[in-house]
Amino acid sequence: MAKKLTKRSEDYSKWYNELVIGADLAENSGVRGCMVIKPYGFSIWEKMQAELDRMFKETGHQNAYFPLFIPKSYFSKEASHVDGFAKECAVVTHYRLKDDGKGGVMVDPDAKLEEELIVRPTSETIIWDTYRKWIQSYRDLPLLINQWANVVRWEMRTRLFLRTTEFLWQEGHTAHATKEEAVAETEQMVNIYAEFAENFMAMPVIKGLKSESERFAGALETYCIEALMQDGKALQAGTSHFLGQNFAKAFDVKFTSKEGKQDYVWATSWGVSTRLMGALIMTHSDDNGLVLPPNLAPDQVVIVPIYRGDEQLELVSKVANEVMSELKAKGIRVKFDNRDTHKPGWKFNEYELKGVPVRLAIGPRDVENGTIELARRDTLTKETVSRNEVADIVVDLMDEIQKNLYKKAANYREENTTEVETYEEFKNVLETKGGFILAHWDGTIETEERIKNETKATIRCIPLDAKVEEGTCILTGKPSNKKVLFAKAY
Amino acid sequence: MAKKLTKRSEDYSKWYNELVIGADLAENSGVRGCMVIKPYGFSIWEKMQAELDRMFKETGHQNAYFPLFIPKSYFSKEASHVDGFAKECAVVTHYRLKDDGKGGVMVDPDAKLEEELIVRPTSETIIWDTYRKWIQSYRDLPLLINQWANVVRWEMRTRLFLRTTEFLWQEGHTAHATKEEAVAETEQMVNIYAEFAENFMAMPVIKGLKSESERFAGALETYCIEALMQDGKALQAGTSHFLGQNFAKAFDVKFTSKEGKQDYVWATSWGVSTRLMGALIMTHSDDNGLVLPPNLAPDQVVIVPIYRGDEQLELVSKVANEVMSELKAKGIRVKFDNRDTHKPGWKFNEYELKGVPVRLAIGPRDVENGTIELARRDTLTKETVSRNEVADIVVDLMDEIQKNLYKKAANYREENTTEVETYEEFKNVLETKGGFILAHWDGTIETEERIKNETKATIRCIPLDAKVEEGTCILTGKPSNKKVLFAKAY
Repeated sequence: MAKKLTKRSEDYSKWYNELVIGADLAENSGVRGCMVIKPYGFSIWEKMQAELDRMFKETGHQNAYFPLFIPKSYFSKEASHVDGFAKECAVVTHYRLKDDGKGGVMVDPDAKLEEELIVRPTSETIIWDTYRKWIQSYRDLPLLINQWANVVRWEMRTRLFLRTTEFLWQEGHTAHATKEEAVAETEQMVNIYAEFAENFMAMPVIKGLKSESERFAGALETYCIEALMQDGKALQAGTSHFLGQNFAKAFDVKFTSKEGKQDYVWATSWGVSTRLMGALIMTHSDDNGLVLPPNLAPDQVVIVPIYRGDEQLELVSKVANEVMSELKAKGIRVKFDNRDTHKPGWKFNEYELKGVPVRLAIGPRDVENGTIELARRDTLTKETVSRNEVADIVVDLMDEIQKNLYKKAANYREENTTEVETYEEFKNVLETKGGFILAHWDGTIETEERIKNETKATIRCIPLDAKVEEGTCILTGKPSNKKVLFAKAY
Repeated sequence: MAKKLTKRSEDYSKWYNELVIGADLAENSGVRGCMVIKPYGFSIWEKMQAELDRMFKETGHQNAYFPLFIPKSYFSKEASHVDGFAKECAVVTHYRLKDDGKGGVMVDPDAKLEEELIVRPTSETIIWDTYRKWIQSYRDLPLLINQWANVVRWEMRTRLFLRTTEFLWQEGHTAHATKEEAVAETEQMVNIYAEFAENFMAMPVIKGLKSESERFAGALETYCIEALMQDGKALQAGTSHFLGQNFAKAFDVKFTSKEGKQDYVWATSWGVSTRLMGALIMTHSDDNGLVLPPNLAPDQVVIVPIYRGDEQLELVSKVANEVMSELKAKGIRVKFDNRDTHKPGWKFNEYELKGVPVRLAIGPRDVENGTIELARRDTLTKETVSRNEVADIVVDLMDEIQKNLYKKAANYREENTTEVETYEEFKNVLETKGGFILAHWDGTIETEERIKNETKATIRCIPLDAKVEEGTCILTGKPSNKKVLFAKAY
C-alpha cells in the first residue's frame, strides 16, 4: 500500500524508477545492467510489438532470425562500424565449465574458442555476411527482412528501459537494387515509426536527420524520431539508417541487374527497442503513476466491486459481469477484479499506479439506482453514469482519452520548444526552461562539439520540415539556412 | 530449378538437410552450430508461436522476460542442475574489445569480468533467483509465467532445427502453494503440448513420463510427448517438469500460507523449441519436399497463372483475383504468384518443395470453361473443379488435408509400434523395422543403461496410458507391471 511515489517536481529520476518498480513494469536483475521485464510491463511491450509487426508486414517485410553470436573478425570488415560498436560488448571466449573441486564450477581452460564470439550489439555484419549467399540477381531484390531479438551493449550506467546492457528490439535490414529505392525505404520506416509513436503511444515526435557525428556507425544518413519528455529532456525513440553500399562492399554482396550489369547492393537498417517503454512512461505519467494510452493498455477498463458480504458481492457481480460482456463485445479489453484479498481503496490505487485508462466502480446503491461510477485515469475525474449507457460511453472515451493524451503531450512540447537567435539566449533557455531549442548552426562538427561541451545540449536532429531561412550560427556567426533541433537528451 | 531432393529411401539424413535448405526454411550460419532461420521457415515458427501463446494465455499464463546472462555461481546452487546444464555453455569472460593495432580488434585484457556470465542454457536459476523477491504470501501464488527466448547449449554435432547451439524456445516457469497444484500444472502443460502437436502439427504423440536417467536435471518428474519420425526414430517434442521444491530450496523462495505457516514453493517448468520444426518436417514430408498441415501453412493456397502474353495474363488474373478475394473472405491464407520472372513449371516445383497444401492453376482455357485445376500437396493428386465451387471446395479441403495428414501419420505410427516379450525379439525389431517398441522393463537404471549400450535404443517414456499387466523384464526377467516405450531417438 505504501506505494506513494516521489513527486516528479521533487526528483524526476527517482519518480521514474519508483514508477517502473511500483507499476510492476520491470526491475533490476542479479546480473549487472540487465533488467527483468515483469508480466505487466511485458504485456505493454507485446502490444507495441504486435502493432509494429503488423505495420512492417503490411509494407512487405518478413521476419527471420539470425545468430546471437558474431565472430570477432566480422566487426573489422566495416571500418566505421567497428569504431562505433565492437568496443563495449560481451565477449564469449570459452564453451565449457567444469567442476572446481570445491562444489562449484570454473571455466575450463581447455575449452577456449579459437576465435572469440561477440554477443550481437546489432546485426548488420552477420546479416550482410548471410545476404551474400541470398542475393545474386535483381530477382532477389528487394530483400525486406526484420528480426525481433535481444541485443547486448555493455553499459556503465544503466536505467530501466532507457539504457540497459541487454535490451529487446526489432532490427530491419533491407537490400535494394538502387540508391533511390533504399532511400525511399529508409524514409518509409521513419514514417512508420512516427505513425506508431503518434497513433499508438500518443507521443508527438519530430522526424529529422542526425548530424554527422550522431549518425549510426556505418550509415550515410540516419533518420530519427525525437520526442520531448516531461522533464524537458529529449529522447531518441527510433532510427532508420541509409547505409549506402558500405555493408555490401564490406561483405561483397553484388547482384546482376536486368541488363546483366554487376553492382553492389544498397542497404538500410532500422530499429526501435524496449526504450520505447521509457518514452511512453515519461510522456504521459503523473505523480499517481503510469498513464497509458488506450491503444496500448493491456487492460483498458477495470471494474472494481464495492461490497460488504457475499450477498452484496453477488448482487454487484451480476451487473459487473453483464457490463464486462457488453464491453468485450465492443472490443474493449476489460478486467473484473473481484479478488477478496484486497480492499477497493487498495485496488483504486493499484490501477491508478498501473495506468488503466478507465475504472468502473459498482456498489449496491449503484445497482439500485442503475448507475456506475466512472473514473478517468488521464484527467483523474470521476462521474456517475447510467448503467445502460456505460458501454457506449466507454467506447467513446477510449478515443477521447487517446486524443487527449496526444494533445496534452503536443501542447507540452509546443510550450517547451523555443526558437533562439543568439548563444546567450540558447544557454539561458537551456538553464531556465529546458526543452527543445531551435537554433541556427553552421553545419560543422567543431561547433556542434563545442556547444555540447559547454552546455551538454546536443543536436537531436535536423528536422525534415525545417523551414529554409537566412540566418547565422549562434556560436560562430557563420551563415546557416535552417534552424536545427537542440536539447539535452536521454 | 535443380532442386530435386535425394530420395528418403536413399539417405534420409541427406534428404532432410536438402529439404530444409531447398524449402528455404533455415541454413547454417558463419557461426559454428548456429542457424539462420529464413523468412519462410520463420513464418511457420511464428504460426506455432501464435497458437501456443494463445493456449498458454487461455490457461492463465503471462509472458515476461529474464536476462540472457546467468552468473556462474547461480548454477552451483541446485546440485543436480549444475551437472546437467552448466557444462557445455557459452561463457562470457570479457566486456570490451580494443584495436589490435593491425586493423582488427582484440579482447581487452583489462576488461575481464569478476564473475563469468553464462549464456542461458535454460532459465530456472535466474528465474528462481527473481521469484524470491516476488513471492511472499499465498496471495502471490500461483505465479504462471512464460518466456519466449533464445538459449545456447554448446553442441558438438549439430543439425538444422534438431540440434543447434543456439535455438529459440518458450520456457514456462510456475510457482505454486501445494504439490498437488504443481503436479496438476505439469500435467496440464503436457496435455496442451499434445493437443498442439495433434491439432496443429497433425502429429500424433505419446504422452508419458521419463525414466529417472532421462529426467530434466533438477526435476522430480519429467512428462514428455514423443513422436515417431518417418525413418523409424523417435523425437522428443516437448517436456513438462515437476520440480518439487528443489529450486525453491536452492534459491530460498518461501511463502506464508493463509494459515500463517511458512513453506517452500512448489515449481514446474515446461518447454518446446524450434526443434518442433524438425518434427513437423519429418512427420509429413515426401521426396518432393515439405508437406505442411493447413493449420500451420503460411500460405494455404497458391494460385499460379498459366499464360502467354499480357492479354492472357490479364484474362487469367481477373479470375485469379476474384478467387483470391473469395478465399480470403473465408479466412483462407492465399497467395497469387503472378511474377513474370519464373515459368509455371518452376512455380509448381517451388510450391511443392515448400509444402503449400493446395495449388490452383488457371489458364485461358479454364477461364473459357469456368474451371480451375486444383492440386493437393498431401496426395499429389490433381482434379479439375468448377470455378464457381472452388472456394467451398478449398475450405472443405483444408479440413480434409489436416485430418488426412494426421491419419497417415497415426497409421504409420501404428504400423511401426511393436510389442515384444523377449530381448531377442526386441533386438530383431530394432534392426529390421525400427519404430516404437513396447517392452517390459524392471525399472532399474542399470538395465536401461545396458539396453542402451547394446542396442542404442533408449526408453522414450513410460506411457501415461500404459496398461497394467503382469510381465517380466526383457533383459533381466525381473517382474514388471507395464510395458514402456523404447526407440532409437533423435
